[in-house]
Amino acid sequence: MALIVQKFGGTSVGSIERIKNVAARVRRTRDAGHQVVVVVSAMSGETNRLVKLAYEIDPEPVSREYDALLASGEQVSTALLALALNKMGAPARSLLAHQIGLRTDRVWSRARIESIGSSVLMAALERGETPVVAGFQGIDAEGNITTLGRGGSDTTGVALAAALNADVCEIYTDVDGIYTADPNIVKRASKIARISYDEMLELASLGAKVLQTRSVEFGMKYGVPIHVRSSFDESEGSWVVPEDATMEQVVVRAVTYDKNDARISIIGVRDQPGVAARVFDLLSEAEIIVDMIVQNSSHDDSKTDLTFTVPKADVIEAQRLMERVAKDLGADSVRAATNISKVSVVGVGMRSHSGVAAKMFKVLSSAGVNIQMIATSEIKISIVIDEAYTELAVRVLHEAFGLDAAPA
Amino acid sequence: MALIVQKFGGTSVGSIERIKNVAARVRRTRDAGHQVVVVVSAMSGETNRLVKLAYEIDPEPVSREYDALLASGEQVSTALLALALNKMGAPARSLLAHQIGLRTDRVWSRARIESIGSSVLMAALERGETPVVAGFQGIDAEGNITTLGRGGSDTTGVALAAALNADVCEIYTDVDGIYTADPNIVKRASKIARISYDEMLELASLGAKVLQTRSVEFGMKYGVPIHVRSSFDESEGSWVVPEDATMEQVVVRAVTYDKNDARISIIGVRDQPGVAARVFDLLSEAEIIVDMIVQNSSHDDSKTDLTFTVPKADVIEAQRLMERVAKDLGADSVRAATNISKVSVVGVGMRSHSGVAAKMFKVLSSAGVNIQMIATSEIKISIVIDEAYTELAVRVLHEAFGLDAAPA
Repeated sequence: MALIVQKFGGTSVGSIERIKNVAARVRRTRDAGHQVVVVVSAMSGETNRLVKLAYEIDPEPVSREYDALLASGEQVSTALLALALNKMGAPARSLLAHQIGLRTDRVWSRARIESIGSSVLMAALERGETPVVAGFQGIDAEGNITTLGRGGSDTTGVALAAALNADVCEIYTDVDGIYTADPNIVKRASKIARISYDEMLELASLGAKVLQTRSVEFGMKYGVPIHVRSSFDESEGSWVVPEDATMEQVVVRAVTYDKNDARISIIGVRDQPGVAARVFDLLSEAEIIVDMIVQNSSHDDSKTDLTFTVPKADVIEAQRLMERVAKDLGADSVRAATNISKVSVVGVGMRSHSGVAAKMFKVLSSAGVNIQMIATSEIKISIVIDEAYTELAVRVLHEAFGLDAAPA
Repeated sequence: MALIVQKFGGTSVGSIERIKNVAARVRRTRDAGHQVVVVVSAMSGETNRLVKLAYEIDPEPVSREYDALLASGEQVSTALLALALNKMGAPARSLLAHQIGLRTDRVWSRARIESIGSSVLMAALERGETPVVAGFQGIDAEGNITTLGRGGSDTTGVALAAALNADVCEIYTDVDGIYTADPNIVKRASKIARISYDEMLELASLGAKVLQTRSVEFGMKYGVPIHVRSSFDESEGSWVVPEDATMEQVVVRAVTYDKNDARISIIGVRDQPGVAARVFDLLSEAEIIVDMIVQNSSHDDSKTDLTFTVPKADVIEAQRLMERVAKDLGADSVRAATNISKVSVVGVGMRSHSGVAAKMFKVLSSAGVNIQMIATSEIKISIVIDEAYTELAVRVLHEAFGLDAAPA
């Protein structure tokens, strides 16, 4: 008997028919002798509907109320799934964040889980009930409702698996696993059977939408195996697991892209200590997450350009902040560009293989793709390019690094 | 400066435009120097949408999950109204039952409020914030979500007014007050300026949908003046207040009807002690509320017919229970009828005026309406008739008791 956390995304519970299918799957897992804790997202479309309502009232909605609003979607889906399970003779109860004590900090709309009470869940399991837990939501120390950001239900699932010491967290989604590239762009992309937490963390950070970054962090920290698989069939999906020796044999595991960032350049700032600190302190105080940072060499020994990327959603705010600080720093101007994308290659094999960057730049150059920014880590190389070249860049890199599957 | 509880029904918050209107009204009350606590129902249509989803899964949904599902509607409307108030510069925060400690018993779908914590609300008011409280919902001692039944938000409003010792509870609705009869049926029905708690309690129990019965009970118990008024204009509505000397001068305050009951007859039960106790114990255990009860005289000194009414929603269950007990009691048969309605006249003036019943029966007889059952209290007379005659009966009674307004 295993203890299994099964997380179902919005598409998987997007209609009554699909909710019944999910209930049937949970039921089968129970019948096979396992204990199951279910985590669900809001029905697909519901969160967007709520966002739209909020924006009709205020394009910059108050965070506390925005989070309370969005969290209502999971109250609906958990109750419906619990109804469906009970109808099938499998005792189940919906549980919201305040009912299990899923505590977070108070960073509205992207709160971090601080602790999870396991007693209510364990008591339910001992009574033979299946807890159906609301993903995406939490409560802060004062009982305010918080949300974990898009994809936050993944993190709820893995965090619950960690808290309950579960054997696996299964992430059911509308794709059947993690691919070497977005199959919508690369026809010969193939499913990855096993991927390390480190690689998955890079992929998730770099725009692969299949898992929320924090869920992978939780998995890595607590050693929870994550099985990403389809909610529409029984096929084996992709396992996110600790790295092993065979994994380094593959140089590049996957190619990914992200169109959600924007670029901001501060032109001609004084090249002296404290400038960068001032800039990034300000962004940090505004809770704007900066991704890539590049400081160009000085024009004339006294001035330099500082370029960085931020989420597109924050670009107006970031530009406003930079224009304020630019005057103080005597900078010439602030420029923002939203027509960019980030393309990355990821693989733990890069640690033991040299020349990956050189090969990447050569391949892109041959394809006529201009590189605007570069960032590297031990296991990934990311470049910023003109958004229009995204698909082309992904395709040529996928082929060049030997990821194209044999033709069917 | 007064402390005012303003409760807005589903129609009043049925669209973003209407939510903005409600926010503007709350804002005006604040600007006039008052403290306001707002209570809202789910947006109109939302509860029905959720009910439909539940029934697609299970025509007899598990109560705990059904309540959790329905309570989500108020989470949406409170957050949206709080967003709108903040947008207008009036600080506000949505508060759910678990956040203010609105505790109920665990009678799912018609829970009773046991206690309300006032500290969170008072703290918000002291900070200058307007609390926007979710109507209709509560939590039981274990933190399960309960609901108070249709119209439960009225009770939330009046109970909050009582807990906070507010000066008035304003019930905003899509009608502009309480009428002497349903204006859809009686063209010359008129708005009642002041009505006693006792009269309103009878009207609410008898099918007038403008206030939930329990809200009137709370108002009476704690002496909270209730002002029922339109959410679409500023006109004075109807006040529900303690009885005063002038009220007895009117014999009949209003005529009302209710088509939601069904009749069950147990034919030929033994006319001996314990029979009725057995029958009504069984219904009570099943939490079926019995309204009128009539026991006919014996056929032949040993057998009698027992007739009573129950909500239409419970008639199948009640009939099933009665058929079980009928065998034990040696009864001949059980009959159920759903094509009935209850028509009532209400007025504290009946205490000091005789002949009201006689007049009522004569008027109905003249109109050719056959009376199936009769029940009376100190201030009301109710009769059960064939449903088809409902509107006719209401009209002739309204006219006969002098309630028709002068032609415009």
